[in-house]
Amino acid sequence: MVTRKQRILSGMRPTGRLHLGNYVGALENWVEMQGKYENFHLIADYHVLTTDVDNTGEILANTIEMVKDWLAAGIDPEESPLFRQSKVKEHTELFLIFSMLVTTARLERNPTLKEQVRDLSEQLRSRAFDEVESSDGIELISYGHLGYPVLQAADILLYKGEAVPVGEDQLPHIEITREIARRFNRLYGEVFPLPEGVVVNQSKFARLPGPDGRRMSKSLGNTIYLSDTPEETGKRIMSAVTDPQKVRRNDPGRPEICNVFTYHQKFNPDEVEEIARDCRSR
Amino acid sequence: MVTRKQRILSGMRPTGRLHLGNYVGALENWVEMQGKYENFHLIADYHVLTTDVDNTGEILANTIEMVKDWLAAGIDPEESPLFRQSKVKEHTELFLIFSMLVTTARLERNPTLKEQVRDLSEQLRSRAFDEVESSDGIELISYGHLGYPVLQAADILLYKGEAVPVGEDQLPHIEITREIARRFNRLYGEVFPLPEGVVVNQSKFARLPGPDGRRMSKSLGNTIYLSDTPEETGKRIMSAVTDPQKVRRNDPGRPEICNVFTYHQKFNPDEVEEIARDCRSR
Repeated sequence: MVTRKQRILSGMRPTGRLHLGNYVGALENWVEMQGKYENFHLIADYHVLTTDVDNTGEILANTIEMVKDWLAAGIDPEESPLFRQSKVKEHTELFLIFSMLVTTARLERNPTLKEQVRDLSEQLRSRAFDEVESSDGIELISYGHLGYPVLQAADILLYKGEAVPVGEDQLPHIEITREIARRFNRLYGEVFPLPEGVVVNQSKFARLPGPDGRRMSKSLGNTIYLSDTPEETGKRIMSAVTDPQKVRRNDPGRPEICNVFTYHQKFNPDEVEEIARDCRSR
Repeated sequence: MVTRKQRILSGMRPTGRLHLGNYVGALENWVEMQGKYENFHLIADYHVLTTDVDNTGEILANTIEMVKDWLAAGIDPEESPLFRQSKVKEHTELFLIFSMLVTTARLERNPTLKEQVRDLSEQLRSRAFDEVESSDGIELISYGHLGYPVLQAADILLYKGEAVPVGEDQLPHIEITREIARRFNRLYGEVFPLPEGVVVNQSKFARLPGPDGRRMSKSLGNTIYLSDTPEETGKRIMSAVTDPQKVRRNDPGRPEICNVFTYHQKFNPDEVEEIARDCRSR
């Protein structure tokens, strides 16, 4: 009996070179899913416009850097197609059609959007396209930003994606995708599967710390890039915050609070026990 | 010196056969504009979805009927391209891009939309996709309906339309198109002209009465179709409301309140004076 592989749609916004946090949180899972599922990998360049309409000059260069990292990590484009959203006009076609199948109110209730609006509020206000009287923020975002989950529904359903690996905060979006698919099928006939959101990124490494102990993030400047040279990587690791109580070499250390130990756990599992023992000993 | 003709984008939703009211209000102008302008005529089938997402089965048949009437009225497709919006994916591409260039608040302030929402309120409530708590109506419309002016901006600017013949109630939409064009040009370079809305349909015949004296309209069932046979047309005219005071043939009539006289004025100008004289005489 031949069992068809489940089809998975996963994507990233092209923000440039990927760092270890991106790898552990997402790319690693993609590589792992290869062979087990039928994978489609989306370069979500249109999604960049939802928040950065005035800063599009680097999207192409960022796309190239990101895809290099995808390939370097082991994604095989022969098996798992990679494609730019903006090169497949059907994304926008479905976006328009789906826009007729969801109310504005439903999109405004999207909890992820509300959070984003809180975070972006200052930036939005300073940019403000229009003189907007209201002050709760949601009116300040672009119409397209409000429709972000509709575009996401188009991204997923265009390929009849059955599962979507997401962070927990993205689950409400998948619910909107399912509502749209259900409505479309009811109105026009059974066309789309109802995709499942599969929450990934829940391991203890999911929010990988940077060498400084804060979550690794481009905006915090504490990243180790996949494309960093061994020397660059070594330099960053050597400057890492370990255990502040271990001042001298012979002070006993606490590996459980040491960022470098977290890296050992993740990337060097074979030696982890020995390293922990050495660290704790005087 | 060669002067380039101004480019005009005009369109209609495909709602089926056209009646004399459609002709006098719009199609007649299109025919008149031929040769004087460079015309693009849009069959706005996607726009049907903004209000009739659950009633799409007749869009194709309605398109064919409407285009037959366009051709019968004298539109020459060799000179003025006719095209279906849904067959040109670039409409949806621009719709998505433009959606990033206008705020939700701006679209919600659209006075035409507010009116539509008032008119549709009952229908929207009964259909309501989602349980919507709010009651001012605007949340009940689809996200795509809210974006109607964004799609219209894409329709116009895709062809670099410089003028758009509109009813007065459509002027606010053209203003949104201009805002989007201005913003796009500022962000990405000078690409789009700023189109002008040209208010047509202001003559005394613009709201052509049906034979019953009310404005000719499909929903009132008082239409004379362009495709009606001479016999059908004659029958409808013979049943027209004229001057109720003219009971007998020899009673003096008042042509200024007679619907048939309006038709004479519009379609039979050469004989109008004689007919008015005859009507008034005993």
